[in-house]
Amino acid sequence: MWTNIRTDLAMEAREMAQERSRQEIPGVNVENVYPAEDISITRVEVVSRQGEENLGKPMGNYITIEAPGIPDRNPEYEEEVKQHLANEIRRLVDLRDDSVILIVGLGNWNVTPDAIGPKVVDKILVTRHIFEYVPDQVDDRMRRICAVAPGVLGITGIETGEIVQGIVDKVKPDLIIAIDALASRKTERIGSTIQIADTGINPGSGIGNKRMGLTEQSLGVPTLAIGVPTVVYAHTIGRDALEMLIREFSQQTDSHSEFYRMLQSLDEQHLNSLVGEVLAEGLGDLVVTPKEVDMLIDDAAGIIADGINLAINKGLSIEDVSRYLH
Amino acid sequence: MWTNIRTDLAMEAREMAQERSRQEIPGVNVENVYPAEDISITRVEVVSRQGEENLGKPMGNYITIEAPGIPDRNPEYEEEVKQHLANEIRRLVDLRDDSVILIVGLGNWNVTPDAIGPKVVDKILVTRHIFEYVPDQVDDRMRRICAVAPGVLGITGIETGEIVQGIVDKVKPDLIIAIDALASRKTERIGSTIQIADTGINPGSGIGNKRMGLTEQSLGVPTLAIGVPTVVYAHTIGRDALEMLIREFSQQTDSHSEFYRMLQSLDEQHLNSLVGEVLAEGLGDLVVTPKEVDMLIDDAAGIIADGINLAINKGLSIEDVSRYLH
Amino acid sequence: MWTNIRTDLAMEAREMAQERSRQEIPGVNVENVYPAEDISITRVEVVSRQGEENLGKPMGNYITIEAPGIPDRNPEYEEEVKQHLANEIRRLVDLRDDSVILIVGLGNWNVTPDAIGPKVVDKILVTRHIFEYVPDQVDDRMRRICAVAPGVLGITGIETGEIVQGIVDKVKPDLIIAIDALASRKTERIGSTIQIADTGINPGSGIGNKRMGLTEQSLGVPTLAIGVPTVVYAHTIGRDALEMLIREFSQQTDSHSEFYRMLQSLDEQHLNSLVGEVLAEGLGDLVVTPKEVDMLIDDAAGIIADGINLAINKGLSIEDVSRYLH
Amino acid sequence: MWTNIRTDLAMEAREMAQERSRQEIPGVNVENVYPAEDISITRVEVVSRQGEENLGKPMGNYITIEAPGIPDRNPEYEEEVKQHLANEIRRLVDLRDDSVILIVGLGNWNVTPDAIGPKVVDKILVTRHIFEYVPDQVDDRMRRICAVAPGVLGITGIETGEIVQGIVDKVKPDLIIAIDALASRKTERIGSTIQIADTGINPGSGIGNKRMGLTEQSLGVPTLAIGVPTVVYAHTIGRDALEMLIREFSQQTDSHSEFYRMLQSLDEQHLNSLVGEVLAEGLGDLVVTPKEVDMLIDDAAGIIADGINLAINKGLSIEDVSRYLH
Repeated sequence: MWTNIRTDLAMEAREMAQERSRQEIPGVNVENVYPAEDISITRVEVVSRQGEENLGKPMGNYITIEAPGIPDRNPEYEEEVKQHLANEIRRLVDLRDDSVILIVGLGNWNVTPDAIGPKVVDKILVTRHIFEYVPDQVDDRMRRICAVAPGVLGITGIETGEIVQGIVDKVKPDLIIAIDALASRKTERIGSTIQIADTGINPGSGIGNKRMGLTEQSLGVPTLAIGVPTVVYAHTIGRDALEMLIREFSQQTDSHSEFYRMLQSLDEQHLNSLVGEVLAEGLGDLVVTPKEVDMLIDDAAGIIADGINLAINKGLSIEDVSRYLH
Repeated sequence: MWTNIRTDLAMEAREMAQERSRQEIPGVNVENVYPAEDISITRVEVVSRQGEENLGKPMGNYITIEAPGIPDRNPEYEEEVKQHLANEIRRLVDLRDDSVILIVGLGNWNVTPDAIGPKVVDKILVTRHIFEYVPDQVDDRMRRICAVAPGVLGITGIETGEIVQGIVDKVKPDLIIAIDALASRKTERIGSTIQIADTGINPGSGIGNKRMGLTEQSLGVPTLAIGVPTVVYAHTIGRDALEMLIREFSQQTDSHSEFYRMLQSLDEQHLNSLVGEVLAEGLGDLVVTPKEVDMLIDDAAGIIADGINLAINKGLSIEDVSRYLH
Repeated sequence: MWTNIRTDLAMEAREMAQERSRQEIPGVNVENVYPAEDISITRVEVVSRQGEENLGKPMGNYITIEAPGIPDRNPEYEEEVKQHLANEIRRLVDLRDDSVILIVGLGNWNVTPDAIGPKVVDKILVTRHIFEYVPDQVDDRMRRICAVAPGVLGITGIETGEIVQGIVDKVKPDLIIAIDALASRKTERIGSTIQIADTGINPGSGIGNKRMGLTEQSLGVPTLAIGVPTVVYAHTIGRDALEMLIREFSQQTDSHSEFYRMLQSLDEQHLNSLVGEVLAEGLGDLVVTPKEVDMLIDDAAGIIADGINLAINKGLSIEDVSRYLH
Repeated sequence: MWTNIRTDLAMEAREMAQERSRQEIPGVNVENVYPAEDISITRVEVVSRQGEENLGKPMGNYITIEAPGIPDRNPEYEEEVKQHLANEIRRLVDLRDDSVILIVGLGNWNVTPDAIGPKVVDKILVTRHIFEYVPDQVDDRMRRICAVAPGVLGITGIETGEIVQGIVDKVKPDLIIAIDALASRKTERIGSTIQIADTGINPGSGIGNKRMGLTEQSLGVPTLAIGVPTVVYAHTIGRDALEMLIREFSQQTDSHSEFYRMLQSLDEQHLNSLVGEVLAEGLGDLVVTPKEVDMLIDDAAGIIADGINLAINKGLSIEDVSRYLH
């Protein structure tokens, strides 16, 4: 019923589109894989303009790894998630032995649910300077990797895209991987779902207010985006509650009655304005998080960083990475 | 309409009770003061067992300072709030020149919205050790003040009440002031409303899960509680959304119709179960916060600490406190 | 030559005593073990009053584990150090199946080199509340463990000993393990040496200024102290430089000359006053640390916490602990 | 006597040069000002190649503000220091109404004594984005200000100079102000002395290991450097101790004796090797800091940020800045 619920996950956008239309979405291919207990992978491909319109996402690949067990912190399970993340990243990128990779941790490090990008950058095995200054310490299995957390407009006074472009001009990477915090429509996905997209970061996506995108088109370099839901907008919770109530009423009502017609006639706009009233001014920025969000984000950051470390080097194990990181 | 919305503010409990009964609440006195632009003070006194039942709060005084301008960080405004907070604290306590005061910062320092107590403790002017070890450095306007952040059960394995009782037995304070994070039913109160209660901290109040209380009865020492809302439960948002929708429908419906009767017949229990379905498992702990909650809590902690510093010393100014703090 | 160089390590005190007297120290037994590559263990036992005087340490056992490889962060090596630490702890304590253990993390969490105690507490597997409130979740291999970081006098206004005594009175533990930051005389020991002592914490030891001790005598409970050097006093560096110069001069000088006699006649007191002049006022608190002290302390805290977790439970592995910690 | 003691302060370099030569240093002008109690300002100008060689610093202006009262945290005193800092900055820069200023906070935020640059950036009033996106919120007294903390080579894998150059190419500032942590030769200067230099940051200066400089020559934009001593190298303490001892011996020795001649003949190189022996491997990175370095650096960062905020806007007061900062 709802078109404007805020989600950055293509998988959720597709689900909602499907709920509305009650059929497969033209221009969108979907594949589901269940590679291990408690891990599922959904590969959504937007293949046409029609698919773009239906999903509100640009053409390209969107892979979602759902790993609801992450909060349990079982080391073996975490390692499995890292390996699957690494595999899915490798499906979308094409690297030479001497490729230079730039990791960009987006978001505001002072705002817990927006800090996942900078936290991932902290745990990336950075090697580019070793190649340049102490080449004899290079392990053959390393690629040239550098990493920055450019901050956000309100902190720097500079568009994130400008900063990244400036650095790209100097470093000339072959691949950019940008990490960002996302909004989901389901609280249980916070910290336990990872989306990988080969379309880069688009303006207005993520939980910060981005004006410019980070895409191959804007930067001139293939750009992979990795995101994790860290918030659900309060608005979404409110709308879900209303939708539930209407569904409940509809079931209890004779379908020939005046009331049933009235319920059916409640249009989207009306419901949106109801939600607007309930949630008053200021709600736009209110987000719902579990109280343990600090911990969830730390854990997710560690998993993403290791997944990237595995994917973009050439055979380093998690233990190797851990040893080199220090 | 809603009785079980979660709030720790006596002022909100009273408002809700009044909305339900549409009359003044027996056993509860209320006084409103507007001492400055954008600052209002509500003094609720629960005076009888009947008042206790009606409000779900023990007999005693509950003073609420609403200062919606705090997030603007205007230094003069902040100073005014601190002075009013100090005045209201002084109304509820009775100190001798040589009284010993123990400040207790409740909550979990690892969980942002629960960390306000420990943050206040960080900014308290602690002096008891000066009296004991370097008495010639004592300023005549100081009282003997000590401060602890005892942690939470999940961190220490010990009931907070046990730790505090153990310290009280050694320090033998004349007054305890306990600071805690609260739940409100309105998001705009987060970080900008302060409640002072001479009833202490009661089991189950605050946003952590307290099993024991900190009260004069349990500790043998008068205990003041100072709290700030730092969360609204997601549940509350959901219920507000439903209530709004029902009200909207009721207005649009002929009061003789079958539908109107149905709306009126929706009882509390039914609505609660609807909300439960919408907000699924795990929701119990989901809280709604502005993304800037880190900053709001830092600001509120500074204001509370200075309000306490002013109230419990004997004429120290904010500048004096600032100088002595380091 | 130097008697008053500041060290909290019994092993160093013994070395210095031996350098002065050029013979074994009466009343002090020493045993050296080399259980693995790059790990050595020195067990010093002070067995008499004479030994106490010679070493300036109370009678009891002082075990030092030197693990210079810790900064390399090799996971296998770290695990070995943890296991040896656990073994040495077990040599000094005697636990029943239902013993209650209280871990006390001493020091000031706001001062990096003094924060190791609180950091260890953060990583202890706390279980006492599980036994009390959810006994069916208890793993048979767990003991009842609780943990506090009581802060320092300047933060709380209360003697650390008073706070600990108050908590001990409530919790009634069978064993206390107190963790503290130490001063060493050698910078290379910072973060890579661990001392375990069954004499508890004595007044004035550690890098904070303790007025009261934490010992079996004062607390009525066996008290183990675990410490890690995190600083070398600047004073020590200055004295080492002077001593080196005098030795150098002595070698270059004819042993019959007036100068040789003069060098030999430079008494300790004179040298101390020289160092005092050089290092001026304020130096007393100046400490020498590697710039990476933040990281060294984090690593050491993790190793100590795991060593304790292994030692005081009944067969939990590091993986078990890691899983239960969250 | 010592030429290779490590200092980044031109004032100290000049003092040492003067101690050696016992006369004014050719090519170097000095002016001393005492604008307030407990504040002194030294303006060193290196005016020729000869001056460059004598001081080891490039031609240009080096202004040092000594404010030993900073650790006392008296608000009025701090305000005076900020005003003098602002005045001295203004002496060295030339701004138009529409100038764009880029603040660069150098150093590693994970290493306390190297973190002052990033900490200053946190407290800069950033305005450039207001001019671009919400011009009606611009205060006429603001200039266009942006700010970045580019990290260090070991964190990013990219030369700091490359990152800054990339951003400069996009932002095209009219002035760069770079903030950096310095090494001093006197511990009492830590956190209480500020150096402003119009020569920018030169390779190898500061306490990190910089390979490239940030200068007008390299960046094409006038570059001011502001630095605060946050460490003294342990090496310096050791050398000071030796020098003191030799001076003491010399005074006690007959100037015709063989020993006196020997003392005089101790050349620099010999002393350096002595110090090297004493302070062994690893010493190169050992730094001496007061235990309260975290606090000293926070305070200094606040003062520098406000000094810059005052200097580069057009009549904003500290209160204005504080209000706008949030």
